[in-house]
Amino acid sequence: MNDPFVIVGGDAAGMSAASKAKREEPDRDVIVFELGEWVSYAACGMPYYVKGTVDDLEDLVAVTPEEFREERDVDLRTGHEVVAIDPEERTVTVETDGERFEQPYEDLLIGTGARAVEPPFDGFDLEGVFTLRSMDEADAIEDFVADREPTTAAIVGGGYVGVEMAEALTERGFEVSIFEMLPQTLQPFGEETARVVEDHLRDRGVELHLETAVQGFAGDDRVEEVELEGETVPADLVVVGVGVAPNVELAEEAGIELGPTGAIATDEYGRTNAEDVYAAGDCAEATNVVTGEPDHVPLALTANRAGRAIGSTVAGDPTPTGGTAGTAIVKAFELGAARTGVIDSEQALEAGFDPVSVTIEAPTRPHYYPGATDLTVTLVADRESERVLGASVVGRKGAKRIDTVATALHAGLTVSELQNLDLAYAPPFSPVWDPILTAAKVLAGKLED
Amino acid sequence: MNDPFVIVGGDAAGMSAASKAKREEPDRDVIVFELGEWVSYAACGMPYYVKGTVDDLEDLVAVTPEEFREERDVDLRTGHEVVAIDPEERTVTVETDGERFEQPYEDLLIGTGARAVEPPFDGFDLEGVFTLRSMDEADAIEDFVADREPTTAAIVGGGYVGVEMAEALTERGFEVSIFEMLPQTLQPFGEETARVVEDHLRDRGVELHLETAVQGFAGDDRVEEVELEGETVPADLVVVGVGVAPNVELAEEAGIELGPTGAIATDEYGRTNAEDVYAAGDCAEATNVVTGEPDHVPLALTANRAGRAIGSTVAGDPTPTGGTAGTAIVKAFELGAARTGVIDSEQALEAGFDPVSVTIEAPTRPHYYPGATDLTVTLVADRESERVLGASVVGRKGAKRIDTVATALHAGLTVSELQNLDLAYAPPFSPVWDPILTAAKVLAGKLED
Repeated sequence: MNDPFVIVGGDAAGMSAASKAKREEPDRDVIVFELGEWVSYAACGMPYYVKGTVDDLEDLVAVTPEEFREERDVDLRTGHEVVAIDPEERTVTVETDGERFEQPYEDLLIGTGARAVEPPFDGFDLEGVFTLRSMDEADAIEDFVADREPTTAAIVGGGYVGVEMAEALTERGFEVSIFEMLPQTLQPFGEETARVVEDHLRDRGVELHLETAVQGFAGDDRVEEVELEGETVPADLVVVGVGVAPNVELAEEAGIELGPTGAIATDEYGRTNAEDVYAAGDCAEATNVVTGEPDHVPLALTANRAGRAIGSTVAGDPTPTGGTAGTAIVKAFELGAARTGVIDSEQALEAGFDPVSVTIEAPTRPHYYPGATDLTVTLVADRESERVLGASVVGRKGAKRIDTVATALHAGLTVSELQNLDLAYAPPFSPVWDPILTAAKVLAGKLED
Repeated sequence: MNDPFVIVGGDAAGMSAASKAKREEPDRDVIVFELGEWVSYAACGMPYYVKGTVDDLEDLVAVTPEEFREERDVDLRTGHEVVAIDPEERTVTVETDGERFEQPYEDLLIGTGARAVEPPFDGFDLEGVFTLRSMDEADAIEDFVADREPTTAAIVGGGYVGVEMAEALTERGFEVSIFEMLPQTLQPFGEETARVVEDHLRDRGVELHLETAVQGFAGDDRVEEVELEGETVPADLVVVGVGVAPNVELAEEAGIELGPTGAIATDEYGRTNAEDVYAAGDCAEATNVVTGEPDHVPLALTANRAGRAIGSTVAGDPTPTGGTAGTAIVKAFELGAARTGVIDSEQALEAGFDPVSVTIEAPTRPHYYPGATDLTVTLVADRESERVLGASVVGRKGAKRIDTVATALHAGLTVSELQNLDLAYAPPFSPVWDPILTAAKVLAGKLED
């Protein structure tokens, strides 16, 4: 009998791998070591728990620990921390309840995820200051709101978590401010999309402080204000969402290579440089389908898919983990904003492209059919090859149309090819020229000039 | 000075070509001969005029004849019938107000469209029996309903016009029956999608008579009943929508070749076999991107795009008309149904494929986020090449997700490549695995067996 398939971390990548490996090769032991008590939960749903859309935090759990153990026959050990990996000996060192033991492995998957970045703000440890990365934190926010009845929320960071939390807390009745160091929110979505979102956030009463560096937080026992340069702003609840950092320390100490992004380097099967050691999810890199370069996109689908592929590979059916287009979508009150590929011109130049872009506004239905709303589409292509590089869209409806461009990116389509797609048209669903096609038409015209 | 660019037919293909050619080459004359008085109208909007969603028939007109003439400088001549083409002499013979004249052309576009098929039903000429192909007919239905107050509608043909009219007339308060010769409605959408739509139509009170051949219509001066084999069904309004036939007589008499579908054969630039004579829109073939064979898909986007491309080509910028994936979408009360590519297994076999298909039902949002509805996805691939051949979807939301598959068809993606697409995920918009990805996963599994 082979030694088991051992997985470090019981989140999206880890549990997908465990389930798939067990399904493909039921006789082999699969052991998952998870530091906490929650596994397989939808972290992306947490803002909607805070908002009140989701009643119970447990609703975010897709599969319970019991189901993994009993129905899927996965040896899931919560409350177990892997403190060392020895790739030579093919063992991991595990700590639980103050005890330590060695666990041999045949194959190992590192799925240690990422953690919220915590800048060295003064007063980070004050009561009422939170990040939003774990289920326990979501619970802690709820408890704090119930116990201490804060009314003024400061969100540090205008990324997608910041925007989602701004909506959630506004809907809960808070006065909400967002503090963002950059000149725009939602940096990966591009300026044009961000501008539309920002106008809408302001319309809904969110105060935006752009190009604003937070120094720290002050208060007696609990947070009372946010400290800026030469100014303070009152806030009795603070959520810090300034990005995530991959949890790579365990891998690094074991001599496993990191890539240029600082996450764990992997090949197309999710393999690290250590034999039979894989990495997937928020701690690992994935190949960007546009640039062909390693990228760090800590999003759920990438983690799920890579975990599942590694489960197959380990069970004897080598399966590529699939690339990432960096596709993302976010709700901001009534708006949906989405992005895919390379939008930022500096990033495009670095990757060797000569980016040309257009931004258009087009209705999601013909003018005569009620309920038409505008979709703002930014489309970027390379001047010489005319290959589509990326897109961003924002509007009250239709943000999922980004998927058409994401598909085009995977296939390496040119702007002309995008323009010639036979997309679905009928008056209740779309104008004859879908907004994506209209953007392609306009960009094709610009490329001809 | 060159002779003008002459266009026969002032609908989607013709007016798109006229506008584009004028924009690219403003000094050249562009003459459009249109038999009727309406140009550039959204025929797809007519059911929504009958339903009452669109108040005024003129709302369906995208650009008025005056705008074409004055703003776009197109020499648009309504009430002019082209009765002959002489490709040798490069002239067309035109009739108007009983007069006849010859018009020389440098380039010619045939955009004669299609007409409603009228089977040899007894009583087709009774008052209250309509097809729905022209704006005049939409008006005539409205007048008839206002004057004669019918209450029971029979729709002959369960294609998309039939389904749209069933919704429109039900919402207007009619008792509606659909008569369809085939065992299913919406034949091009496949059985699985049709079944979901049919259940919904019945729920909404539409009576479905499948595998039912209509013999004719009876009544004194106006229609009173539909005659079936050995049975009659009362109906005081009849709409016949059993398909369309391309208007090819003018082309055929001029020696222009038709293709295997019976529509005018064209090459990738929309050229017919006659020099400098193009054809586009509902009278012409287009290349199916899945089979590579000529196809006849009389839909608006194909017509608009081909017309526009021919306008560019004629103006000196050769532009392919683009292929068709046969993508279509239809609303049936609360449901949206969409299709793309090759779904029918006979059609797939004829095209040299070995089709394998799956049908899955998957939510459009995660279980914990309110408002999730199911999307039924049928996905078809070729067994050996694993290339995606087509798909059909149906549900209360999300039918536009067909565009992802349409894009994949244009790019020739395999099922594995489809499964690995990085599509947009966030709880308000999609589950982690979009229903299209779930269908691809299941189909990939089936292909492995």
